Amino acid sequence: MTEFRFARRSAILGSSVFDHAPGTISLNSGAAYPPLLPDVVREAAAAVGQHREEAMQYGPLMGLNEMRDEICHFVAADGVVAKRHNVLVTYGAKNAFDLACRVFVEPNDRIIVTRPTYMTAIHIMRTHNVRFLDIGQDEDGFCTRELEAKLRRLEANAEPMPKLLFDVPDFHNPVGVTTSLARRQEMVALAQRYNFLICEDDPYRRIRFEGDAIPPIKALDTTGHVISLGTVSKTLAPGLRVGWAIGDAGVVRRMAMQKADGGSNTFAQRIVVQLMRSNRISHHISELTDQMRHHRDVMMEALAVHMPEAKAKAPLGGYFLWVELPEGTDAERVVELGVFEGVDASAGRLSFPTDDPGNFLRLAYSFVGEDKIRRAIARLGVAYRRYKQADNPA
Amino acid sequence: MTEFRFARRSAILGSSVFDHAPGTISLNSGAAYPPLLPDVVREAAAAVGQHREEAMQYGPLMGLNEMRDEICHFVAADGVVAKRHNVLVTYGAKNAFDLACRVFVEPNDRIIVTRPTYMTAIHIMRTHNVRFLDIGQDEDGFCTRELEAKLRRLEANAEPMPKLLFDVPDFHNPVGVTTSLARRQEMVALAQRYNFLICEDDPYRRIRFEGDAIPPIKALDTTGHVISLGTVSKTLAPGLRVGWAIGDAGVVRRMAMQKADGGSNTFAQRIVVQLMRSNRISHHISELTDQMRHHRDVMMEALAVHMPEAKAKAPLGGYFLWVELPEGTDAERVVELGVFEGVDASAGRLSFPTDDPGNFLRLAYSFVGEDKIRRAIARLGVAYRRYKQADNPA
Repeated sequence: MTEFRFARRSAILGSSVFDHAPGTISLNSGAAYPPLLPDVVREAAAAVGQHREEAMQYGPLMGLNEMRDEICHFVAADGVVAKRHNVLVTYGAKNAFDLACRVFVEPNDRIIVTRPTYMTAIHIMRTHNVRFLDIGQDEDGFCTRELEAKLRRLEANAEPMPKLLFDVPDFHNPVGVTTSLARRQEMVALAQRYNFLICEDDPYRRIRFEGDAIPPIKALDTTGHVISLGTVSKTLAPGLRVGWAIGDAGVVRRMAMQKADGGSNTFAQRIVVQLMRSNRISHHISELTDQMRHHRDVMMEALAVHMPEAKAKAPLGGYFLWVELPEGTDAERVVELGVFEGVDASAGRLSFPTDDPGNFLRLAYSFVGEDKIRRAIARLGVAYRRYKQADNPA
Repeated sequence: MTEFRFARRSAILGSSVFDHAPGTISLNSGAAYPPLLPDVVREAAAAVGQHREEAMQYGPLMGLNEMRDEICHFVAADGVVAKRHNVLVTYGAKNAFDLACRVFVEPNDRIIVTRPTYMTAIHIMRTHNVRFLDIGQDEDGFCTRELEAKLRRLEANAEPMPKLLFDVPDFHNPVGVTTSLARRQEMVALAQRYNFLICEDDPYRRIRFEGDAIPPIKALDTTGHVISLGTVSKTLAPGLRVGWAIGDAGVVRRMAMQKADGGSNTFAQRIVVQLMRSNRISHHISELTDQMRHHRDVMMEALAVHMPEAKAKAPLGGYFLWVELPEGTDAERVVELGVFEGVDASAGRLSFPTDDPGNFLRLAYSFVGEDKIRRAIARLGVAYRRYKQADNPA
């Protein structure tokens, strides 16, 4: 048996490999709702037919120019001013965030994150061997005051200062909260004062069920201290693997140089260009938002019926409910029992960069329809009652 | 002006961003010959039509099972025994190599490479902040005796031992040499004895013009010490961005966990599955090989006419000529002068991990047709004569 000499980072095993038992209902991934996946046969045929050389040859490292221009146009609706040279096309926002880490982060550097935060971002950061500076959230979102106090303390102690902040300011994954405009302004001011970059991950922004949109942090940035990470994974289809980073031209160029695989696949970009130009993307987002609002409502109702002990605040958009079980509950054990009942949920632990309070669940309502959502929550309710009957804590 | 605090690796600027002046003939990239790029309209329509959910949803992290099975079948023809669990689908072989680096390499680790070696592999390794243990090549390819001596010396000095070896054993990029069977066996024996992994990058293997194939190093591996890096970039189309790593099941699983972007794009995989199942890939390779042989011959002839001082050995396959100019020639200066004449060539320096002898050029005959190859070499000949007339060294 060969003993391989792995690097430290390779001990990090993420949460992305799922093997579902047949019949299991999955609430553990923000995957797309299959009935609404777009039909792109015409666009794909055009991409590889009319644009054969573009589609089949190595693509430009920064992405297709038309794709970069359409992205500028798409984000302009949110008040983000970007030119082509500010845009790097990537394989989704996760790939973009990894490239930002490659450009800025050295091992043992600190990255500012919320506690909890997006589980796959934690995975990516861990592969860079980082430490976390974790910050809480309240009903206004990111607690800038806590961040400021922590930065002051680091500075006073002459500690190395963080270079990056990662956050999901709209319909936060997993918590669901949206950071207020005032807090966003404070975040930018802190980024400028302490010279770190904010990676604003905003996949859910357009999936808003109620209330008024708040400008993206990137729209408040005048000094290049914000990198906006975008994707069509939540607005069109994850399988397209088209995302982007928008930032300072020199920064995104350096990110491009960290791509190991040259230009990203151009024919997926050409499909997205067509869907953006024809404005099919807007119609799709509108339909999807109605569907997701309904899923959220169904899940909230089902929780009230089947798990009345669980507390969850209805998010104003996005794909997830963040569920608090009574203090002391071992949510991981509830998830394990859920597997036997035929439901896959995510324990909150996966979303905590540091200590896990232990009694949270992240439930995605994006992937399965209303009937399955009801059945899944009923099964989770059974699992929870089994947990309690077994004389477990809480 | 914001002063960004970049990580060390971000100082590495690769060679992959090209801006060609109009009319310039490019010999500097192993891009595909456009007239032979495959028509995949039918396959693409099937991929997003009949397989809509597969194409549009997040893909499996390891790749589509059918894709992994087809890859096993494809490499079986070379004597490589692989099962589905040995195969990870990636965005091309470069992406696969980067993942291998992520799994094994710590900063300042040594990687064994030939001098010269594949320029983009050098770029990828540099982003991992590695050191190079560089080994020469002769007419039998990789100099195992030199490697053994260097490993012994490291061991005797209690130095950290390398964990990875990167090589292109068939039609080496850039040199063109093919490593003999005996040397391949010695490489495997050394990998086993010193417990390092061989990353065998084999994109050109099937583009053989003459002579008999030699088994891949992977076919000689019984202990999991070889990771075979494959791709359809050279056999079908680079734009598909479909490649793979074949290795020990636990190793490729760890490589998958280092993917920042989840599963690779499934609809490109579905296109490739169809092209492999229908055996269109074999017909395509056959046609492409004839075309590339012709390109090689035209370039060799043109060199003899326009640059008789240049020495190049006709490779038995692959995409490149490795051209030696008279000792003392500053090949980088010749390349610069070539730009003014309307030809883009690659100076050998880009292919040297450490010291560059200075008088080499890498010329790709893959991308442009015979007329342009002749014109490009004539222009390079003009550049070279200008160089000599300017009383430069050599």
